[in-house]
Amino acid sequence: MADLLDGLKPTLLMGPGPSCVFDETYAALAKPTIGHLDPYFIKIMDAVKADLQTIIGTKNRLTIPMSGTGSAGMETAFVNFTEPGDRVLILTNGVFGKRMQDVAGRLGARVDALEFEWGTPVVPEAVEKQLEQGPYSIVAVVHAETSTGVENPVQAIGDLVKPTGALYLVDCVTSLGGIPVTMDAWGADLLYSGTQKCLSCPPGLAPVSASGQALEKLKNRKSKVPNWYLDLSMIMNYWEGNSRAYHHTAPINMVYALYASLRCIMAEGLEAAFARHRAMHRKLAQGLGELGLSMYVREECRLPMLNAVTIPESVDDAGVRSRLLKEYGIEIGSGLGPLAGKIWRIGLMGHTARPANVDRLLAALAACMK
Amino acid sequence: MADLLDGLKPTLLMGPGPSCVFDETYAALAKPTIGHLDPYFIKIMDAVKADLQTIIGTKNRLTIPMSGTGSAGMETAFVNFTEPGDRVLILTNGVFGKRMQDVAGRLGARVDALEFEWGTPVVPEAVEKQLEQGPYSIVAVVHAETSTGVENPVQAIGDLVKPTGALYLVDCVTSLGGIPVTMDAWGADLLYSGTQKCLSCPPGLAPVSASGQALEKLKNRKSKVPNWYLDLSMIMNYWEGNSRAYHHTAPINMVYALYASLRCIMAEGLEAAFARHRAMHRKLAQGLGELGLSMYVREECRLPMLNAVTIPESVDDAGVRSRLLKEYGIEIGSGLGPLAGKIWRIGLMGHTARPANVDRLLAALAACMK
Repeated sequence: MADLLDGLKPTLLMGPGPSCVFDETYAALAKPTIGHLDPYFIKIMDAVKADLQTIIGTKNRLTIPMSGTGSAGMETAFVNFTEPGDRVLILTNGVFGKRMQDVAGRLGARVDALEFEWGTPVVPEAVEKQLEQGPYSIVAVVHAETSTGVENPVQAIGDLVKPTGALYLVDCVTSLGGIPVTMDAWGADLLYSGTQKCLSCPPGLAPVSASGQALEKLKNRKSKVPNWYLDLSMIMNYWEGNSRAYHHTAPINMVYALYASLRCIMAEGLEAAFARHRAMHRKLAQGLGELGLSMYVREECRLPMLNAVTIPESVDDAGVRSRLLKEYGIEIGSGLGPLAGKIWRIGLMGHTARPANVDRLLAALAACMK
Repeated sequence: MADLLDGLKPTLLMGPGPSCVFDETYAALAKPTIGHLDPYFIKIMDAVKADLQTIIGTKNRLTIPMSGTGSAGMETAFVNFTEPGDRVLILTNGVFGKRMQDVAGRLGARVDALEFEWGTPVVPEAVEKQLEQGPYSIVAVVHAETSTGVENPVQAIGDLVKPTGALYLVDCVTSLGGIPVTMDAWGADLLYSGTQKCLSCPPGLAPVSASGQALEKLKNRKSKVPNWYLDLSMIMNYWEGNSRAYHHTAPINMVYALYASLRCIMAEGLEAAFARHRAMHRKLAQGLGELGLSMYVREECRLPMLNAVTIPESVDDAGVRSRLLKEYGIEIGSGLGPLAGKIWRIGLMGHTARPANVDRLLAALAACMK
């Protein structure tokens, strides 16, 4: 068998993730593997935790990367902090809200879903009314809906959830590193993300953070967490304290990669990174407009890093995406669920959000739509 | 903050895993990330599946790497194939059998544990007797007990389990790639492993394989798998067939790494790799004997890749390990549970199992024990 890796061509990743990876992160991946209990590795773990706290906007001690991709973060948030029979409210306006319902339901939670039209944001007034049907033990929302490109008003929702005593859970898979994430200011108790979006790291880890109130709930569970692999009550003893008890073997080189990506983001500065995402979004939206394409989401709730673009009726969705990939080496995303065939999803995540990349996509798209 | 990655020194990994990584695998990790639905990535996935089938000794179509470390493989095996109330028999002679009990118990299985002394193998006659207390829906055993260095007689156990109709589950985390693993010949229905042992890849993926009988059980579950992230009934639609439905974003670069490691092993040849492990084990055992050290496990059930060595009473366990790491750049493992302080665990896994590495360890150990 020929070596398939020799044939790997760099792709400009402008889909919904993975995004382009920093050169420093590729270099980090290839650094020598050391032991998962090596004191030097523990130093790297501690540095990763500190940077994650900064980028997540939290002082939570339990702020760590779980050993799985973003969806493992979602699983972690529900499996540790719900027990069978718990009432959970999920605010849904896209695929990932739907996924939360599925995850929580499998764990025996009694799930209420408050649904909003895909492509529009969650409406706080509706949430306020629904909360009267509580009490809920968890209220969950997606900050940046990757399936639609909508930003949800997580601060306003948090202001409503906090007084009810529910744990407030925010999915920041696509938002983290691209727009401000201020967990403590939002009053969020649980948060998870993924590495392959605005952190510009390959997929493989899921940063999570849990508040003191959340850990209190974990401590007072009636039964063990029904998932050994993701049990935070054990995993925290590996990521914290002096004894560093072995739980499972951490994905060493992926932790190096996350370390490098976080260092790159900190070197640029969070505000500068956010400004770059906004500027590239404006540049892309303007260029798409010049090609006669329109954005699917109205301006005030659009995400900069995930751009949903309405596909004109005359255009062959799959044909254009396939040509972009094969002829131009550019990946963009298709629509999911009810939006399949109706939108493209163009990612401007992390290292992808550069002027030359936007120009390259616009030129290629113009050629493919001719 | 200084770049901690610049200070990473290569370590000779002679503990219970991670093991030394092939150069080709490090290079693979740094290859450009492409999309998880890119047709070229799907080719790499297919090649990984084919090599895994060969190394696992199975024709099972569902033979894939799960997106987590070895313990995620254990979780996968139990969460997909047990339902609450199912009777499970676990044959235990070390930490990882104990872990299986914990994992299965959390999922509501009624667990019977048949325990054997640590450092000795499972006794088929005792298993035969215990099976009369069945029927069990799953019977589980660890092929290579990483905590003790004992090989269990998985063929003989399989011959007993098969006629009972139970699913036969074998943990091959430490054995895969180091000694023959012949899943189909054993009559095993479920198998999982990890990448960081004899596959000489960093930790991060868990190869799993499931037989047709196992998939039948999955299809006939009364309830959904209570773990969205590890639900094989969905994940198989991403790893198989023509449509390749998105489930979660696969850890792209880790899949490259596994691909490269498997290619290296296939290039050497499985028989040659097994012979090398045996030869290095003999070399190590002889050298340890010359240092006055003795093996903890009796010869006929010793694993070549995990060598449990009795620590003489006069020797400072932690002191020697710490000196080996700090002064000689060599990691060996400590004892776990009841064997803490009593044994060292010296790994000869995959790329670690080379004559120069054995010589280097023996010389360093001699110096540290003076």
